[in-house]
Amino acid sequence: MKTDIDRLMVEAGLDGLVLFGGSQHNPYMAYFVGRVHLTDGLLVKLRNAEPVLFHRSMERGEAERTGFSRQVIESFDWATCLERAQGDSAKAKALRTADMLQACQLDEGRVAIYGQLDLAFSYPMMEHLRQALPGIQWVMEPEGETVLDKARVTKDQEEIDSIRRMGQVTTEVVGEIAEFLTRQRAANAILVDNDGQPITIGQVKSRIRRMLAERAAELPSGLIFSAGRDAGLPHSVGDDGQPLPIGQTIVFDIYPAQAGGGYYYDFTRTWCLGHASDEIQTVYRDVLQIYESFVSAFRVGEPSHGYQIQVCQAFEALGHPSQLSDTKTQSGYVHGLGHGLGLSVHEAPSFSLNTMGSFTLTPGMVFTFEPGLYYPDRGIGVRIEDTLVVDDDGSIHTLVDYPKDLVIPVPGS
Amino acid sequence: MKTDIDRLMVEAGLDGLVLFGGSQHNPYMAYFVGRVHLTDGLLVKLRNAEPVLFHRSMERGEAERTGFSRQVIESFDWATCLERAQGDSAKAKALRTADMLQACQLDEGRVAIYGQLDLAFSYPMMEHLRQALPGIQWVMEPEGETVLDKARVTKDQEEIDSIRRMGQVTTEVVGEIAEFLTRQRAANAILVDNDGQPITIGQVKSRIRRMLAERAAELPSGLIFSAGRDAGLPHSVGDDGQPLPIGQTIVFDIYPAQAGGGYYYDFTRTWCLGHASDEIQTVYRDVLQIYESFVSAFRVGEPSHGYQIQVCQAFEALGHPSQLSDTKTQSGYVHGLGHGLGLSVHEAPSFSLNTMGSFTLTPGMVFTFEPGLYYPDRGIGVRIEDTLVVDDDGSIHTLVDYPKDLVIPVPGS
Repeated sequence: MKTDIDRLMVEAGLDGLVLFGGSQHNPYMAYFVGRVHLTDGLLVKLRNAEPVLFHRSMERGEAERTGFSRQVIESFDWATCLERAQGDSAKAKALRTADMLQACQLDEGRVAIYGQLDLAFSYPMMEHLRQALPGIQWVMEPEGETVLDKARVTKDQEEIDSIRRMGQVTTEVVGEIAEFLTRQRAANAILVDNDGQPITIGQVKSRIRRMLAERAAELPSGLIFSAGRDAGLPHSVGDDGQPLPIGQTIVFDIYPAQAGGGYYYDFTRTWCLGHASDEIQTVYRDVLQIYESFVSAFRVGEPSHGYQIQVCQAFEALGHPSQLSDTKTQSGYVHGLGHGLGLSVHEAPSFSLNTMGSFTLTPGMVFTFEPGLYYPDRGIGVRIEDTLVVDDDGSIHTLVDYPKDLVIPVPGS
Repeated sequence: MKTDIDRLMVEAGLDGLVLFGGSQHNPYMAYFVGRVHLTDGLLVKLRNAEPVLFHRSMERGEAERTGFSRQVIESFDWATCLERAQGDSAKAKALRTADMLQACQLDEGRVAIYGQLDLAFSYPMMEHLRQALPGIQWVMEPEGETVLDKARVTKDQEEIDSIRRMGQVTTEVVGEIAEFLTRQRAANAILVDNDGQPITIGQVKSRIRRMLAERAAELPSGLIFSAGRDAGLPHSVGDDGQPLPIGQTIVFDIYPAQAGGGYYYDFTRTWCLGHASDEIQTVYRDVLQIYESFVSAFRVGEPSHGYQIQVCQAFEALGHPSQLSDTKTQSGYVHGLGHGLGLSVHEAPSFSLNTMGSFTLTPGMVFTFEPGLYYPDRGIGVRIEDTLVVDDDGSIHTLVDYPKDLVIPVPGS
């Protein structure tokens, strides 16, 4: 968590962290500044010191809310930098950044870099920054194992509360959608409204978006509501024009975040409208069995990758293919059992099969558990997903409960 | 526009373009793939050839919708790459990328790179990619002047139609908010509802979000609804808890995009609830005068920076400070007259004072015109913004019209 950052910097031998960019769609920056709206910025964090935020003059009202020591970007004159760089804007940006770092007494030592930036610009900018500050050794931390990733992998109480609140919003919306669907009726194997008009996936998504907006939540990373063959492709978001089929699997995977760049929740249920065939029920039962047997099996101190191996083995024991025996399989259990979430919808801890990316389960971790089975050729996809938290006492449980019924009753089906 | 890409590649002497990352919050990728949901990807475009899209196997349903020639990322084995890279994940990613580029016969020539990526990972990855494919000369195009920026600076009819539709949604929402406000009443210098409860900025924003969601629009880059001193800071988004004041300037700057990563619209009105003081009316009148005199003055073939100089001069002639005489002024006219917009809310053309960043106004350009005056110490901020299009016949006009009344009548004020 945030209080670990200085210790982690010591362990990594880092003297400074430099974060580039604004606060939107830039989780590392949002980790420091919170839901403050900055379109551009630079944050410098020296070891055992409070961060310094460089912000645009126009955004000083926003920047004030961070409580950090602040400096205005415009006080580092752009025209002068551009002149010194002989018109090369990437070099000018590097020179200005170097001036800002020097204003923080950061011109030597080991420094890590962060920030979601456009590669066309950030790569040449970094090349010039390297030349401008030769005393700095830029430390390239491995993806997912940076100091800030390691800090973010465990959440403090405030972060967990934010995630839980999003979970309450999420399950409330899911419940209302289930109720809405059950108030319609079946006709010719699709769902229709009381006037006999087909209900489409697009209409359901629009209803979901409106309900989230009413609750100050957004869908910055999308929304999956996919039926039939699409449900068999884990990341298919669904076809807006498609009417909802009766008796086919519908995967409803919803991962909203607090409006304005906050914490995510991630949740999936699989539904069949009206009825489910024996074939679907069998697949669903297997996923539910794996869910039930593993959701209470996570233990503090255990490596994350071990669970992925066990879940693969359990699916294979039920006769389903998995990545364990065939890394490229597109049928059966084809993805990881879950992932950490927080300011990103996918973050550490990873549950990869790869031991190198393994994490030890630790209090403060928040992660999804989402076993699933996919048979696109048979038009079947099933996933059940909840978000779990590792409590201070070491117990591991879902953040928000919600029923796991497969069939949504629909009149006329 | 998109049909210019091959010609622009010839002019820039480029053999290939390589785009990294998914389609969300990654406008260059979205420019090619449209509103298709990819969490990861690589797009390779050789000169005079159709793009090739590398996508995750799980996302093949989405990738199919692009119509591009496709390859599955997983067919380039990660474990092998990681082994070749001796466990260095940035190097492994570079090796896998190199394999993908070679699969497209791209292992020499001049190649430009694009994509919104995390610097902690992308910079070391590029260093390794350089070593892995020594035959490629990676071309670092200046920010805002890349081949894709130059293509994006003019829009085709389909793009303009998308932007106009967002404009219709935007002005519809703004109109409904104005009606909502006028149905409330004034009490003790703030706006209250019929039960006498204060209406807060947070409530209004929540209403705006809901109305946008109902219209399949999102606010990926935020929303400004700021009053009083906050209105005097051009980028202050407003304080959710603040009740709406009577008789103070409220800057309402709304820049939504089509849900799922589409085109933006950008629009601002300044309102006073109930009444406006003479002081505010004078400032407003000056902004409106500049708006009216320049909105019809844009001409095809003229340089964009020239207009910024003229607008500064015009404000100064009315007695207001501007960046022309004082680059660091925080009072008066403190920002640019506008910016291009499309898949990003800020893109080319720029209207910077700097001649180097100047663009010639050309048919197909879409840009905002947003003169404003800011006096934060007096608690006044005024901005009027419309989005303009340069038509094929060279005429330049607003995409969607909306009234410019300052005062929103409120009973009891």
